[in-house]
Amino acid sequence: MKLAFTLEYDGTNFSGFQRQKNAVTVQEHIETAIKEITGTKITINYSGRTDAGVHALSQVFDFDTDLERSSENWIKGINSNLPKTISVKNVFEMPKNFDSRFSAIERRYSYVIYNSKNKPIFFDRFTYWVTNELDIEKMEEQLDMFLGEHNFTSFRSSSCNSKNPIKNISYVELKTIENFIIITIAANAFLQNMVRIMVGTLLDIAKNEIDFTIKEILDKQERQYAGKTAPAKGLFFLGPKYVEENTINSYVPNLIDRIKN
Amino acid sequence: MKLAFTLEYDGTNFSGFQRQKNAVTVQEHIETAIKEITGTKITINYSGRTDAGVHALSQVFDFDTDLERSSENWIKGINSNLPKTISVKNVFEMPKNFDSRFSAIERRYSYVIYNSKNKPIFFDRFTYWVTNELDIEKMEEQLDMFLGEHNFTSFRSSSCNSKNPIKNISYVELKTIENFIIITIAANAFLQNMVRIMVGTLLDIAKNEIDFTIKEILDKQERQYAGKTAPAKGLFFLGPKYVEENTINSYVPNLIDRIKN
Repeated sequence: MKLAFTLEYDGTNFSGFQRQKNAVTVQEHIETAIKEITGTKITINYSGRTDAGVHALSQVFDFDTDLERSSENWIKGINSNLPKTISVKNVFEMPKNFDSRFSAIERRYSYVIYNSKNKPIFFDRFTYWVTNELDIEKMEEQLDMFLGEHNFTSFRSSSCNSKNPIKNISYVELKTIENFIIITIAANAFLQNMVRIMVGTLLDIAKNEIDFTIKEILDKQERQYAGKTAPAKGLFFLGPKYVEENTINSYVPNLIDRIKN
Repeated sequence: MKLAFTLEYDGTNFSGFQRQKNAVTVQEHIETAIKEITGTKITINYSGRTDAGVHALSQVFDFDTDLERSSENWIKGINSNLPKTISVKNVFEMPKNFDSRFSAIERRYSYVIYNSKNKPIFFDRFTYWVTNELDIEKMEEQLDMFLGEHNFTSFRSSSCNSKNPIKNISYVELKTIENFIIITIAANAFLQNMVRIMVGTLLDIAKNEIDFTIKEILDKQERQYAGKTAPAKGLFFLGPKYVEENTINSYVPNLIDRIKN
């Protein structure tokens, strides 16, 4: 039986999702929690790696098991073995060939900026505090230039070892709510630090610290032309989207609606 | 010159507001930050003590100084010497006889409950997680019984050493927003742990763990009849209200509107 779970976490105190030696990761917590229930050591598949400090609203992971339990028992059982900053939300029985990573056709992230002279006392863990006055219209106009298929060599970390820098951006949105600026980006896949460099570059353009347009920086295909990497703590992985026959009730198109429930 | 400041803090990592030996308090941070600017050791007056772990949206403190600085310089200067979980918001020049504590005629608190089967991953620092189904109408009806002047002996900590247990509750409100329940209470003054015991008792009544009404528990004048003390982390001190001639632009009647700015 193939089971897929949706998962929420506050990434502040984890060295990212993926298991590592000598570092506390979300994957390690989950695999340990599952072992407490099934008694067997398993390795999960998951929809997307997140960097250290990045949060998730609907990460998806799956594994095979013969153990029969009710959905409620799976969720309660795993959660009771997880720290309070990680929470399993839902479980779905999936077709044998489902894979959280390879069945995903799109991934969506939101980046949250707190734009105010005042410190974000109550939002510090989850926002990037920017005090500069920002030209929001310019940011929106530049953000739109990411849409479509591009070579994202300028927008990847120097340590990124993905073979294909060509990604297809299917959706971008900039929303302001009170002092928050929320930038949402969907793509078939992302390179290392890609969203954070995209957002950092938009901010540097909005502060007039970069004179190139996004289109020009994409064309350069060199990291040095893009802006600073925005900090991890403002980034939320909203979740993956799957092909229709694998649709699991996990897709989060909007940070604000999701976070309130 | 008498200066009054409004102050916001995340109380999670402080042993309350009031200065103590061998504990990190908000007062200590503020007095140290002021000393960095004025060069003199001062003791501030403040509108209300908050317990360890309690947050504030508009605590008010004041002190006398001969130093002439612009408002912006005062705020920036103090904030640059404060940790990121404490922030000075505004400064006001007040009449000589103003005192943050003794000039206050009302204080207001909100308590935030997160009522859901799901863990409050992103709100854990600032809410009390309650998974039980709660009878909200019953809570509202019981909350209303606090209005007016009562002897609050049943609703004070056993270590409270206030001489007068009679307090006048001028406002109560229960609001639900998504999975949050926000209880707001205003009074001329509060006893130790009073709001937390009031909220804990309402919750115990809503869970049918207490059969007495609020009115009956008030009449008993014994702590044992009230409910559990709700945890500090859900409690926000919204701020004090002053007599008209001392009105400073600090009064926070509503948690939700305030927190968004």
